[in-house]
Amino acid sequence: MSEVETQNSPFTEELIRQLRATDQFGNWSKMSDEELLVKKYVKTKEDLKSLPIIADIDEMLIGEIKMIFKAVALQFERKTGVMCNVVMEMSHEGFGRCIVIAGRIVLVDKYFKDAHRFSFRTIEKLYEEGDKYLATSFKTYEQYKPCIG
Amino acid sequence: MSEVETQNSPFTEELIRQLRATDQFGNWSKMSDEELLVKKYVKTKEDLKSLPIIADIDEMLIGEIKMIFKAVALQFERKTGVMCNVVMEMSHEGFGRCIVIAGRIVLVDKYFKDAHRFSFRTIEKLYEEGDKYLATSFKTYEQYKPCIG
Repeated sequence: MSEVETQNSPFTEELIRQLRATDQFGNWSKMSDEELLVKKYVKTKEDLKSLPIIADIDEMLIGEIKMIFKAVALQFERKTGVMCNVVMEMSHEGFGRCIVIAGRIVLVDKYFKDAHRFSFRTIEKLYEEGDKYLATSFKTYEQYKPCIG
Repeated sequence: MSEVETQNSPFTEELIRQLRATDQFGNWSKMSDEELLVKKYVKTKEDLKSLPIIADIDEMLIGEIKMIFKAVALQFERKTGVMCNVVMEMSHEGFGRCIVIAGRIVLVDKYFKDAHRFSFRTIEKLYEEGDKYLATSFKTYEQYKPCIG
């Protein structure tokens, strides 16, 4: 996947829009979109080694993980005009679940353990994963659409 | 709805089972099932008047609300053999959402505001509501089942 393609991915655009919206004091204004995404979502194998296996997860990290699924939900809405909702339950021990629903259809169902270690090895993996969630959402919606009635 | 019918409701049995399971120290062992359900879930109009409009919600109350939906989920599993999951997101201000899903199908979707005031006016209303959730779950599952593929 080339740089230009990933930058233009609708998922990534939505995610950046959300991250930037939380930057009330402009702390990240000098960072490029890619730098910001790396800072928030990319942890290399080396980074992970320095993280404890068991640790508490804070509200900010929960919010940042949820943004990935909100980005999927918002893109889905934009493309289909169908309203989505994101429901995320997360214990402070980092166990949880995040669901994206459109009416009675579950578009994304992601289970977490060790959410404090949640990350992608490279930024390309983040792009890929987001696009995959979105593709699965469209596919699932098409599959269940005939039953909406 | 007569006393005996409501006592035998599968939803109520499941709910009581869950409530009793949290009673580690036997504080409620002398209470009847009905007394316990009233204590936990019934608030009359008079009770509500004494509650503030805006207030924080604690973990225990969140857990007790979730039990209602876990009781629906467990009953659904018992009857159909289909696994369910309950996902509940609740802010400390009492805004939130609780979802029961079976695979890709949303069986129950309940939105909360002022969750600290969440209650039923009478115990019969609690029974009715639980049975209604369960009935809707069966109906929704039947409706979407042909699309599972």
